[in-house]
Amino acid sequence: MYDKIYQGLGQAFKTDFYELTMSAGYFQNNVNALTTFELFIRKLPNNRSYLIFAGLEQVIEYLLNLRFTNKEISFLRKMPVFKYVKPEFFDYLKKFRFRGDLWSVPEGTIIFENEPVLRVTANIIESQIVETFFLSVINFQTLIATKASRVVHSARGKGVADFGTRRAHGPEAGILAARASYIGGCLGTSNVYAGYKFNIPLYGTAAHSYTMAFDSELEAFQKYYATFPETTLLLIDTYDIEEGVKNAIKIGKSLKGVRIDSDNIIKKSRIVRKMLDEAGLQKTKIFATGDLNEYKIDEILKSKAPVDMFGVGTEMVTSRDDPALGGVYKLVEQITDNKVKYRAKFSLEKSTYPGKKQIFRRYAKDGMIKEDLLTLANASRLSDSEPLLKCYIKNGKLIRRLPELAQTRQMTIKNLETLPDKYKNIYKTVPFKVKASPELIQLFKELQRRYFNLKSLRN
Amino acid sequence: MYDKIYQGLGQAFKTDFYELTMSAGYFQNNVNALTTFELFIRKLPNNRSYLIFAGLEQVIEYLLNLRFTNKEISFLRKMPVFKYVKPEFFDYLKKFRFRGDLWSVPEGTIIFENEPVLRVTANIIESQIVETFFLSVINFQTLIATKASRVVHSARGKGVADFGTRRAHGPEAGILAARASYIGGCLGTSNVYAGYKFNIPLYGTAAHSYTMAFDSELEAFQKYYATFPETTLLLIDTYDIEEGVKNAIKIGKSLKGVRIDSDNIIKKSRIVRKMLDEAGLQKTKIFATGDLNEYKIDEILKSKAPVDMFGVGTEMVTSRDDPALGGVYKLVEQITDNKVKYRAKFSLEKSTYPGKKQIFRRYAKDGMIKEDLLTLANASRLSDSEPLLKCYIKNGKLIRRLPELAQTRQMTIKNLETLPDKYKNIYKTVPFKVKASPELIQLFKELQRRYFNLKSLRN
Repeated sequence: MYDKIYQGLGQAFKTDFYELTMSAGYFQNNVNALTTFELFIRKLPNNRSYLIFAGLEQVIEYLLNLRFTNKEISFLRKMPVFKYVKPEFFDYLKKFRFRGDLWSVPEGTIIFENEPVLRVTANIIESQIVETFFLSVINFQTLIATKASRVVHSARGKGVADFGTRRAHGPEAGILAARASYIGGCLGTSNVYAGYKFNIPLYGTAAHSYTMAFDSELEAFQKYYATFPETTLLLIDTYDIEEGVKNAIKIGKSLKGVRIDSDNIIKKSRIVRKMLDEAGLQKTKIFATGDLNEYKIDEILKSKAPVDMFGVGTEMVTSRDDPALGGVYKLVEQITDNKVKYRAKFSLEKSTYPGKKQIFRRYAKDGMIKEDLLTLANASRLSDSEPLLKCYIKNGKLIRRLPELAQTRQMTIKNLETLPDKYKNIYKTVPFKVKASPELIQLFKELQRRYFNLKSLRN
Repeated sequence: MYDKIYQGLGQAFKTDFYELTMSAGYFQNNVNALTTFELFIRKLPNNRSYLIFAGLEQVIEYLLNLRFTNKEISFLRKMPVFKYVKPEFFDYLKKFRFRGDLWSVPEGTIIFENEPVLRVTANIIESQIVETFFLSVINFQTLIATKASRVVHSARGKGVADFGTRRAHGPEAGILAARASYIGGCLGTSNVYAGYKFNIPLYGTAAHSYTMAFDSELEAFQKYYATFPETTLLLIDTYDIEEGVKNAIKIGKSLKGVRIDSDNIIKKSRIVRKMLDEAGLQKTKIFATGDLNEYKIDEILKSKAPVDMFGVGTEMVTSRDDPALGGVYKLVEQITDNKVKYRAKFSLEKSTYPGKKQIFRRYAKDGMIKEDLLTLANASRLSDSEPLLKCYIKNGKLIRRLPELAQTRQMTIKNLETLPDKYKNIYKTVPFKVKASPELIQLFKELQRRYFNLKSLRN
């Protein structure tokens, strides 16, 4: 389950340098607090009203395997910037493990702006060092799972496969995008590594170069079909699409499908469907590719173009219309010598609630999501609601099994069924109601008052 | 030099599934050609007039290490889709190595639309399988090296550091973005792994959480400074920026710098500079962060705001204003039984020249780049020009040493000095002249004539 996707790569160094200098600063100055950080997404990307949370499996695998190698430690020790840091810090790093707690919403959960969806409580250094890795896997996979869910929604039940690896941000981004887009509802991926490691169905057709490697298109088609008689999808537009259909028709009625890779899917799919039908290939499917996204698929299907399935690449795996997610990881509580100190930000645009929190989700009588309530983590469960955050790691040990990825995908689909349609509009954002409990608001106001009093005393 | 960044990860599976089904198709049908593919970028991203080529080191490392593990082969063998494929194909995969030739322009080369910047000649299966990996590392790193060069250009000699890992498309994208942005001219990165593996200078300051972990901002500052007296950059806007400067001033004149993380760098940097100067901290630098990009930096420096250095994150590592590069990898030549067949595409928008090619770069008398000439690869060298493609791998063996990354960065900077300023305009595209040699045009026309004759015969 916890496949070593990052095995041997120096997990601990996949971080920003300041996490290590801050850690040295805490160590050197004996800051020995039990600290809680929460991760949340400050602002939804354009046209999005919800997000699909993804990336938790990689977070868990990271925490369970996190350690510094001797080579890494000697690299740090030799850096001039650490000249004034006590040697004991490096001995500490040698024994460094994550021994804290991790709470999170499950992958596939629908989440909203500013909800604390993941929470770490640990020694201050342990909770600090993990920040960068957490953000990089969760920002990206959540971005892509969300984008995929939009594409799948637009496809109105017709299948979508991820074909984006070659335009993803490097090979690993291709793998993680395949994983996230499967969570978001895609049927499968072209990424072989993702298929192998995460048990995602693999999809593929053939490239123009395959057709060009033979003396004629017909020969290329016949020989591909002979090798893959049950699964062949022929790419029919290497030279001329009508020629291509004619050659495909020669393969016969058992041909599974044809692929059109074009800018004008609507027009071409109609021509191709008509030719196939007239030749008796009613069962042969039409697979469309070519810089597709949720907006183009919506247009194609609104026009009732006879497309049976979509291969989506660049636009999905880069979330091209808004390619970055602004997840942040903020200090909310710190316990030193059994004294709890709550932490919050009070700036106008960037206020954050203090303290360890829980999210309670309320449903309407018809089972649809109604609103979310943020409370302090120790608030008692509300009768008509579901607490979203669950404990996954306790004192450094995994205490909750993760589902197989196919189950997570099913869960996402089920969750999306409980989301009212208005939030699924791909063209505009509809704000969702996230309320804070009276206790949380009171705590925030108290801290704010104390902070501004302090400030006015200083001035 | 060839660090195992992907070690143990199943290199061969970092590919699209169709590369493997096409390979099985070639194998099964005894297609045994020596094949040449070329990689080129079909369309420059918005507002770009040039690209900085990057990613070659990862391509070379991949080719030298490419093999299928036994586990991978048995995974494929069990897939229903391969049911009709001869078992000999899987024995072939067991012994599969890249034994072909790789030609490429060096990393840091300035390249333009539709130039064949990388070329593979190998057995058809070897040259096909590598497509996806090539595209995913070169598309991404070229995208980011280019974006970084724009940001660095805007910064007019003030330093730029990459701070983007947390918003990159996963941990590896953060590492590759750090590498590419260093090639593109950044001074360094916050990514520790990239610093360690590629010998890139590491930069970092501290986070708001660091300040919040202490009882007062002044205490946080004093303790950070005590740990890092020579390198401390204090983040001064956790609570109130003027309070922050006052506390920073208490550290004294040897304070290296302060960081402002804000939406309004112009206004705030002026306030901060004035306060620092009045307190005698003229040597303390101002470091700015906060969703910066080439456009914002241009604005900041046009207004003469007193910023000394920039930390750039999200916008650079995702190339946010245009987050994907359309690199493609196309068949151009195929030799079967000593007979050469040239391959090209003739569609209106997507024509490609046939045959193995070379790029000759011509310079004006003042040393500035004038134009590029595409020729067939065996064309003799033109007296006033430089051939850009060089042979790196011959028969599967590395024959050319790669430079250290710092040298590649220097080379990029030198190359950019020979690029006329008009192409560096960050707001608009200026087309660059890429000509084709008469021989190349003739060959294209011959093929085109033959192709359209054939087509009219068929109709």
